[in-house]
Amino acid sequence: MAIMRIGKAEIRVMDLEESVKYYTNVIGLEEVGRSEGRVYLKAWDEFDHHSLILQEADSPGLDHIAFKVEHEDDLAKYEKKIEQFGCTLKRISKGTRLAEGEAISFELPTGHQVELYHEIVRVGTKTGNLNPAPWPDGMRGIAPHRLDHLALTGEDINTVTRFFTEALDMFISEKIMTVDGEEMVGSFIFARNGKAHDVAFIKGPDKKMHHVAFYVDNWYEVLKAADILSKNNVQFDVTPTRHGITRGQTTYFFDPSGNRNEAFASGYITYPDFPTITWTEDKIGQGIFYHRRELTESFIKALT
Amino acid sequence: MAIMRIGKAEIRVMDLEESVKYYTNVIGLEEVGRSEGRVYLKAWDEFDHHSLILQEADSPGLDHIAFKVEHEDDLAKYEKKIEQFGCTLKRISKGTRLAEGEAISFELPTGHQVELYHEIVRVGTKTGNLNPAPWPDGMRGIAPHRLDHLALTGEDINTVTRFFTEALDMFISEKIMTVDGEEMVGSFIFARNGKAHDVAFIKGPDKKMHHVAFYVDNWYEVLKAADILSKNNVQFDVTPTRHGITRGQTTYFFDPSGNRNEAFASGYITYPDFPTITWTEDKIGQGIFYHRRELTESFIKALT
Amino acid sequence: MAIMRIGKAEIRVMDLEESVKYYTNVIGLEEVGRSEGRVYLKAWDEFDHHSLILQEADSPGLDHIAFKVEHEDDLAKYEKKIEQFGCTLKRISKGTRLAEGEAISFELPTGHQVELYHEIVRVGTKTGNLNPAPWPDGMRGIAPHRLDHLALTGEDINTVTRFFTEALDMFISEKIMTVDGEEMVGSFIFARNGKAHDVAFIKGPDKKMHHVAFYVDNWYEVLKAADILSKNNVQFDVTPTRHGITRGQTTYFFDPSGNRNEAFASGYITYPDFPTITWTEDKIGQGIFYHRRELTESFIKALT
Amino acid sequence: MAIMRIGKAEIRVMDLEESVKYYTNVIGLEEVGRSEGRVYLKAWDEFDHHSLILQEADSPGLDHIAFKVEHEDDLAKYEKKIEQFGCTLKRISKGTRLAEGEAISFELPTGHQVELYHEIVRVGTKTGNLNPAPWPDGMRGIAPHRLDHLALTGEDINTVTRFFTEALDMFISEKIMTVDGEEMVGSFIFARNGKAHDVAFIKGPDKKMHHVAFYVDNWYEVLKAADILSKNNVQFDVTPTRHGITRGQTTYFFDPSGNRNEAFASGYITYPDFPTITWTEDKIGQGIFYHRRELTESFIKALT
Repeated sequence: MAIMRIGKAEIRVMDLEESVKYYTNVIGLEEVGRSEGRVYLKAWDEFDHHSLILQEADSPGLDHIAFKVEHEDDLAKYEKKIEQFGCTLKRISKGTRLAEGEAISFELPTGHQVELYHEIVRVGTKTGNLNPAPWPDGMRGIAPHRLDHLALTGEDINTVTRFFTEALDMFISEKIMTVDGEEMVGSFIFARNGKAHDVAFIKGPDKKMHHVAFYVDNWYEVLKAADILSKNNVQFDVTPTRHGITRGQTTYFFDPSGNRNEAFASGYITYPDFPTITWTEDKIGQGIFYHRRELTESFIKALT
Repeated sequence: MAIMRIGKAEIRVMDLEESVKYYTNVIGLEEVGRSEGRVYLKAWDEFDHHSLILQEADSPGLDHIAFKVEHEDDLAKYEKKIEQFGCTLKRISKGTRLAEGEAISFELPTGHQVELYHEIVRVGTKTGNLNPAPWPDGMRGIAPHRLDHLALTGEDINTVTRFFTEALDMFISEKIMTVDGEEMVGSFIFARNGKAHDVAFIKGPDKKMHHVAFYVDNWYEVLKAADILSKNNVQFDVTPTRHGITRGQTTYFFDPSGNRNEAFASGYITYPDFPTITWTEDKIGQGIFYHRRELTESFIKALT
Repeated sequence: MAIMRIGKAEIRVMDLEESVKYYTNVIGLEEVGRSEGRVYLKAWDEFDHHSLILQEADSPGLDHIAFKVEHEDDLAKYEKKIEQFGCTLKRISKGTRLAEGEAISFELPTGHQVELYHEIVRVGTKTGNLNPAPWPDGMRGIAPHRLDHLALTGEDINTVTRFFTEALDMFISEKIMTVDGEEMVGSFIFARNGKAHDVAFIKGPDKKMHHVAFYVDNWYEVLKAADILSKNNVQFDVTPTRHGITRGQTTYFFDPSGNRNEAFASGYITYPDFPTITWTEDKIGQGIFYHRRELTESFIKALT
Repeated sequence: MAIMRIGKAEIRVMDLEESVKYYTNVIGLEEVGRSEGRVYLKAWDEFDHHSLILQEADSPGLDHIAFKVEHEDDLAKYEKKIEQFGCTLKRISKGTRLAEGEAISFELPTGHQVELYHEIVRVGTKTGNLNPAPWPDGMRGIAPHRLDHLALTGEDINTVTRFFTEALDMFISEKIMTVDGEEMVGSFIFARNGKAHDVAFIKGPDKKMHHVAFYVDNWYEVLKAADILSKNNVQFDVTPTRHGITRGQTTYFFDPSGNRNEAFASGYITYPDFPTITWTEDKIGQGIFYHRRELTESFIKALT
């Protein structure tokens, strides 16, 4: 049928054990497996086997993101559309990574590696699916519900956005335009899942990652997240505030390798007929940080 | 493509002006039009022309619910599937109601009238789509974001649920089963929009409505809603609590005609591959009211 | 100078170990000592040695409440005032209970035992007083900040209230009056500490306890408390709601012996010149439960 | 008996009408009177006639703060203590300002003007004191409950703090000490009212004001406040965060004249026996801004 959501991301970290400690104790993900130097993690409220893979490397950054499709035969359907758009792709065979089935892999116009997949081992959420409690006992750290979205940078936002809407049938919730209306410098892209975004692109160097976001429930959970980060001496980029774009509530900070993380809450609901919101670049400060109303240098420059 | 959401409901009220006052001042919807004895209302965060229609009548209850499809030609596609399921349907021509285009109309196995539509005048949300504020000035009453879902009753939950999954390609987030596992006595149904439910069915008499729910942001908004209801002497059915089913936060109350309303917040995200949660009937108390852990007579018996 | 706060309460429980488990794991108090069949407990944010004492007995209920005075010589001052009011009292010598100094003990006009004390071992809060974190790691259960207040019943609310204002220099935040204005049927009494109440009296049988309340921070903490109670199968009396009286947010439930507990949040600030609020008995439903607007039988009748 | 609270502050503003608009529409205070070029304001939840006075002047800053004492004869008592401490003072006669009775006026060691008073016209809160609603209809702007505290700067924090504890019988909740423990560079002072502070002093130039704080209920109200400030293009100093000191939640911003305002929520309860918390100057970043963990230049330098 269609893409359901961003289901996984693999990121590069520089000290694997330190990173695992951070993502399990501070973020509060659960380690679900290790294989060939990679550590597989999931959030308590996710039912698939993993949503985040850590890969030890010499530099931080993104290895790839992956979207889960509704049916196995969606892979063939999107294979065709992606090739028609002009991207080359390849099949990745089942078992290449832990618990994963067959996938297709391709490169975005911005140089980022992306995969589509359907098959993955289902392990269920921590609360189960028989008369479940609303939340599990024994949560650790920030304990987000899920991997929510990633934000990436690229030179040509217009083309990558067109790729997502034309080749992947995804939708734009918001876009940032230069004041003259001639260039798109940011876009926020969602699948048919009600989310404000599964992935976002911001004008900048190709192949770079701006942040990985985890979903927490509400503004109080953002405060709890920020308290936990401070207790653990995690470096903040942006303390709790509201986004203009998505209306969500947020705090940004860095993992031990310098990859920016976000704890993101709330935001509106989207549908395919959601009227795309436009921010003009002169208001981008308020668009990104609704209160401060101006960007900070670190928020613009720190990319991995 | 597919159904996007429950888009509208038309309900019967007994004193039209008193009801309009209630739905605009207490609930905080906006009156967007009147025509042929009907009053059309929308929530501030909805972009379509209306989501609730009040129809003056001798008794309260549901006139019909309507689902919005992604494309105009989805009407023909679902027309076929609905007929295949064995329901008779008819086309409703454009202009039958204010601001609405062509629709198809049919009766559920439970006797409720349902419509599918694509075309409706788009008026935009109150915050607009150019550099919008997160919320508009001048909100009144509870000020929900949207019509969220309806809950209806019927004799044969299994068949009506099968209708939604087979004929309408919708999904089941949760179901309530008798302890012996033989009969489904409740089901919670969603479209591809991340919601916990667009419509729910509970074992009971055919053609009846249990409640109309409006979405508010969070547990504090549920408190604010309850405070406003008490200030306005609105009759409560259930004061603020958490649902086991959907994990959402809630309060139930009655409109001036006796139609039950809900202010509903939070809940998890769903996708087509969401693992359906099962509640066994012996735990239904906790499933419905996570704290009280038992149903009340009024909650079971008051239907319109 | 004056009374600072309700500092301690000793209650009777029927199965000591089961009660200790409940008060430490579900409520989340810390056991700080045992002596002569009594278990001493404190909340994480209290700096004195203990605030709750459990005493094993054949029936539940209150042994005594105790108010902490600002200076040691306040004991002599209040001794005189209490005697002038007509109550007999006695001195309790240091070391009678664990970690406690000298105290005075007397009986209220309602038959309840009360003590005043100044000396008690100070152990400090869990976050310490050097560059403290806002909350400690490793909290368990509801994890309230403190013992907040007790509500007791008595035949003559007017006299016991007069005792608190005249003999103990305390203040009335709210009172409930019969509609004819002739009899006081409820009073809410505070010391110079900004609290909405340290102790409350409701018309009913002498010597009985209505509830022991613990303070949690806000409406979200009341939800978390209620979720934890349900997970632990604790019997609720009243699920989360707002009080009219004190404006606070609340949920009521029963300890394993049937003593009613409350998780109470928010409320206004008081001062000696706070204008006493009057509730007329016809509005007492809304006064107690702002949303439901009527009392329940269990709330009235279950006393220990 | 004793000081009850900071009851009023008079500040200098440069454009009176613009300031009145800001304090009534954005902050949401109520104008209660005008006289001799001064505008008198109160918050909806305060029962005395006014808590903030605006005085038109050529430069912003503090005219005076005033503490309300419990009894009229406390004025004479403190007059003696203040003189013993070495401050000269004078009586201000009834009617010098609108709705105010007799007061005593003196200068702090830091050069700030302070008054003590008991008499002031009581007008009651907006919800009244007969069967009141928890909050009034028709609130505007941030709508704080009360003037909460002021923070002032001075060269000699030790002496001014000693003045408050010795001459005014007030208490220290927290202090900031140089790392060698030799100098106090910050102190947070409260009366017997449970507040985290009525007034604070930070090392800096004499006679200057750092901020005027208004109390809002909780972390969600801080978000609402920040949203309203952004909608009104008010200049922020610090976007929403938590304080280490007081544990409270906060946002700082500037009135049209450049006087810093704060919306402050939560914080712990204090009593006369509260164990003073010490922050060492090397941790002051975390003490002031628990998340960012470093001071900003504007927060240090912008004084009026």
